[in-house]
Amino acid sequence: MVTIKDIAKKLGISISTVSKGLNGASDISADTRQLVLDTALEMGYIGKRTKNSLSKHVCIVILHLPYSNIDEYGYELISGFCLAATENNYMVSMVSIDDLQKAHKNYDTAMEMLGYHGAFFVGLTKDDAYLEQLQSTKIPTILFEEPVQNPCVGTIGVNVAEGIQQCVSYLHEQGHRRIAFINGLNNCAAANMRMEGYRRGLDLVGLPFEERLTGSALFYPPVSVKDFIPVFLEEKATAIVCGNDYIAAAALSELMQRGLRVPTDISITGFDDNPVAKYLSPPLTTINENRLGIGRTALIMLDNLTRNGCTGVMLTHPKLIVRKSTGKYVSQRY
Amino acid sequence: MVTIKDIAKKLGISISTVSKGLNGASDISADTRQLVLDTALEMGYIGKRTKNSLSKHVCIVILHLPYSNIDEYGYELISGFCLAATENNYMVSMVSIDDLQKAHKNYDTAMEMLGYHGAFFVGLTKDDAYLEQLQSTKIPTILFEEPVQNPCVGTIGVNVAEGIQQCVSYLHEQGHRRIAFINGLNNCAAANMRMEGYRRGLDLVGLPFEERLTGSALFYPPVSVKDFIPVFLEEKATAIVCGNDYIAAAALSELMQRGLRVPTDISITGFDDNPVAKYLSPPLTTINENRLGIGRTALIMLDNLTRNGCTGVMLTHPKLIVRKSTGKYVSQRY
Repeated sequence: MVTIKDIAKKLGISISTVSKGLNGASDISADTRQLVLDTALEMGYIGKRTKNSLSKHVCIVILHLPYSNIDEYGYELISGFCLAATENNYMVSMVSIDDLQKAHKNYDTAMEMLGYHGAFFVGLTKDDAYLEQLQSTKIPTILFEEPVQNPCVGTIGVNVAEGIQQCVSYLHEQGHRRIAFINGLNNCAAANMRMEGYRRGLDLVGLPFEERLTGSALFYPPVSVKDFIPVFLEEKATAIVCGNDYIAAAALSELMQRGLRVPTDISITGFDDNPVAKYLSPPLTTINENRLGIGRTALIMLDNLTRNGCTGVMLTHPKLIVRKSTGKYVSQRY
Repeated sequence: MVTIKDIAKKLGISISTVSKGLNGASDISADTRQLVLDTALEMGYIGKRTKNSLSKHVCIVILHLPYSNIDEYGYELISGFCLAATENNYMVSMVSIDDLQKAHKNYDTAMEMLGYHGAFFVGLTKDDAYLEQLQSTKIPTILFEEPVQNPCVGTIGVNVAEGIQQCVSYLHEQGHRRIAFINGLNNCAAANMRMEGYRRGLDLVGLPFEERLTGSALFYPPVSVKDFIPVFLEEKATAIVCGNDYIAAAALSELMQRGLRVPTDISITGFDDNPVAKYLSPPLTTINENRLGIGRTALIMLDNLTRNGCTGVMLTHPKLIVRKSTGKYVSQRY
């Protein structure tokens, strides 16, 4: 087994310098530190990994996304990942991207120094540190939603377009022919995919796309929802597909204030199946992303990468949850 | 544990009728057989599965695709799946779609009767039996390349567009600016994805799309390749991206017959990394799909589905294999 002494001997430097290099001490030059780390990697010195030889150690790096409470977006992703990790003999640490950066500016080196065999990034965006390095990393890494062209990096995300398309198809099956759509605000991937799903859904059932049956509100808070409702009513909409559950809740409230009944007069669908969705009145028909399953699958993808499996971009099937906010079209009621 | 007797009692029919229903005998009506099977499923009667209680039993259904020899397309998919199955304590059977159909016209019932916990379909097309039933099956099923919107059905396929795009980017990095493309014949998904990759590749490096730098040959045999070469030469192409290794081999041979040198005068890339690619002269730069890894990952996806994981469409990252048929652009040599 390679020791610190072997590395020192190979590089012709002192054992304490090698030790400083491996532990990220700041009183040696960056070049020396990199040289030590590169040599340690090359010689197969395992470092901190040996401490956890019975189970592999992976980390979750979560950014820009709340996850502490069950009603926050990241919660189930993290729980699912951790549950699958336990079942598959993995240890999981949560680290911030700052922790990694403090260890080393180079992603692969930071992971090696901290003893992680792989990572699951949630919420990474194009502006974050490491995204460029992920294009060429050799460390098994799974990203939530952000695709990167590298055989060592997999991506898992929800097929959002498929979810919205399911709402349109379902409403059409229920007899609706005037199906409006309130998207989240334009020009972000989440909104573009929803619009793609709406258009594809209309296409599949043979309905035309009509500008006046669409609108965009903020995903949260959905303040402008009330501006679109009067137009939809003029246009005799009998169903409204909403970009998320908050938008659906706002639409529901606006319709009630106007004395309209859901679903008797108008059917409504949400997206996300937030915990609040089932407590609305009426309980909301919505799309469940199975985030617990996605977290679980992220760990399985990571494990597969460490065992000669291959990876890529996985877009998961979302699931329509039918509750009481949608009903059969009978006749124009308002 | 539920027995045949319990089922008979519940349905108010004889034990022998239940037994006939479970074993697919033809001397009872189709309705009765279906009723028996539905009831057996509902009551949790496990049937043939109990015979293999120590390992789960899954099947591979392979259609329209040769797989017996190492140079045939399906070979590595099947090997990878079987290797991963062995490591994960699964038994695998190969069955034909006719075998399944003989057991029962209903897919879920056939799988239950034959004792399979899940299936991997390779080569299924829109015309095949069961495709429609796969839209609503509850049996964990993984398909190669064919997407189906059902949370119980996953799909794995290669991101072909990404592969062709990698060829274009790589050739651009090598200094090439006149990059031609011979696709497989138009109007099939395989060709459309390749064209998408070529256009996206040009786009990313800032080169215009030019009709006269493109052509379509049959994927196999690539007879019309020779028709495009003179046009490409007139257009001063210095590199040719090919839709597969057979097209690349034909282009190579055509260029040699015209006294041109590869890669000195013109660089060539293939696609698939067929066993023959490395034996061409010069050995071919090409795209490897890692079909062994895909087969392995299909089993992992199937296993994940049986353990509350979720699934969807996974498009895997292909890998550029640089050999000797590509080189740096120096100056126009011919």
